[in-house]
Amino acid sequence: MTIQAVVFDAYGTLFDVYSIAALAEKHFPGKGALLAEQWRVKQIEYSQLRTLCSTYKPFWEVTQDALVFVCRKLKLELSFEAQNALMGQYAKLQAFPENLGVLEQLRSRGMKTAILSNGNPQMLDAVVKAAGMQGLFNHILSVDSVKKFKTAPEAYQLAPDVFGLATKNLLFVSSNCWDACGATWFGYTTFWVNRANAPLEELGVTPHGQGGNLTDVLHFLDKH
Amino acid sequence: MTIQAVVFDAYGTLFDVYSIAALAEKHFPGKGALLAEQWRVKQIEYSQLRTLCSTYKPFWEVTQDALVFVCRKLKLELSFEAQNALMGQYAKLQAFPENLGVLEQLRSRGMKTAILSNGNPQMLDAVVKAAGMQGLFNHILSVDSVKKFKTAPEAYQLAPDVFGLATKNLLFVSSNCWDACGATWFGYTTFWVNRANAPLEELGVTPHGQGGNLTDVLHFLDKH
Repeated sequence: MTIQAVVFDAYGTLFDVYSIAALAEKHFPGKGALLAEQWRVKQIEYSQLRTLCSTYKPFWEVTQDALVFVCRKLKLELSFEAQNALMGQYAKLQAFPENLGVLEQLRSRGMKTAILSNGNPQMLDAVVKAAGMQGLFNHILSVDSVKKFKTAPEAYQLAPDVFGLATKNLLFVSSNCWDACGATWFGYTTFWVNRANAPLEELGVTPHGQGGNLTDVLHFLDKH
Repeated sequence: MTIQAVVFDAYGTLFDVYSIAALAEKHFPGKGALLAEQWRVKQIEYSQLRTLCSTYKPFWEVTQDALVFVCRKLKLELSFEAQNALMGQYAKLQAFPENLGVLEQLRSRGMKTAILSNGNPQMLDAVVKAAGMQGLFNHILSVDSVKKFKTAPEAYQLAPDVFGLATKNLLFVSSNCWDACGATWFGYTTFWVNRANAPLEELGVTPHGQGGNLTDVLHFLDKH
């Protein structure tokens, strides 16, 4: 086996972001799913735009900016209370049900693990605790240290640097296809957790493995 | 007046992309507007992702990739005929009705003009001809020469370089708010043609001028 460490994306991969839509639905009946989807798209767009333009700010703030914009676009009045509730949800997302077991399996196999996330350190600390994942990672890496969001090469470089391992010997795991594709371009071995059974992005690049949930990462590792 | 040249974005600013939705509606009844909107979002996303990852390919191909992906996502069967028709539309977009008059006004005032577009040269040549705009620009600049899409600084640098003018003395005009914001960050004087009366992006930056169509650029110039 050539994989020497597993590097996980955070939001959507380890932490269940679907609860956002349910909470949004409570505040904006009939619009929860639309708000959650557009919020996520805008959050990623802003992170990429700020990276291209060298105007980094922490992901927590980018996330809040995206929420404010999308509510304005959808003509939803965002009360202070709703904003705090929706942002607060990001700090206490739960893990997908299979995730803790998979992370414990990896530890019992002696596999090293890390998170590599757009989230700033405070966000990540809070969500790791909320999901009961303290102590399950060798490293929690935030792009905040390089002030560039994924898919910038400086962001992906953090994991090979901290492990002192060749990028191809790291398995990068993400539920975001664009992230898995960016990491593949960068040189990682990659696994796309395709929870929503979405089509592959048309980027001319294919992650090395694909599955429906995090358990499939273990099956991939058995073969690599 | 300190503005010495006007630099226009192409798609959506000079050329009317709304005809895409009408054509999409013919091929996919009931889904035309959704397809057109998601196609545009995905086209921009791919251009930014490829710029971040240094995996440039011409905008025509990126546009086609985005169309193929979005049809797959929306579970629409994209026939060879529909693909050719929709892509072909990009090559023959019409100008917004006021645009030719505004460009001629700028010429009669002795103002220098350019296009600065993500489109590759072949796309731009075709669409400028289709819209009857030959000879109305001093320069037609494509990011293809630097292999990075907007909002990369190398893309925005093309216009100050070709004119030999300070960036702040160039008025950059775009109907895409993210593009107007990126250009503002870069140092241009900027004007957002907000045709759809959309909210300002939450990026902490505001274009210097704003209006509902291209004619408002003339009013802005009268005051600057």
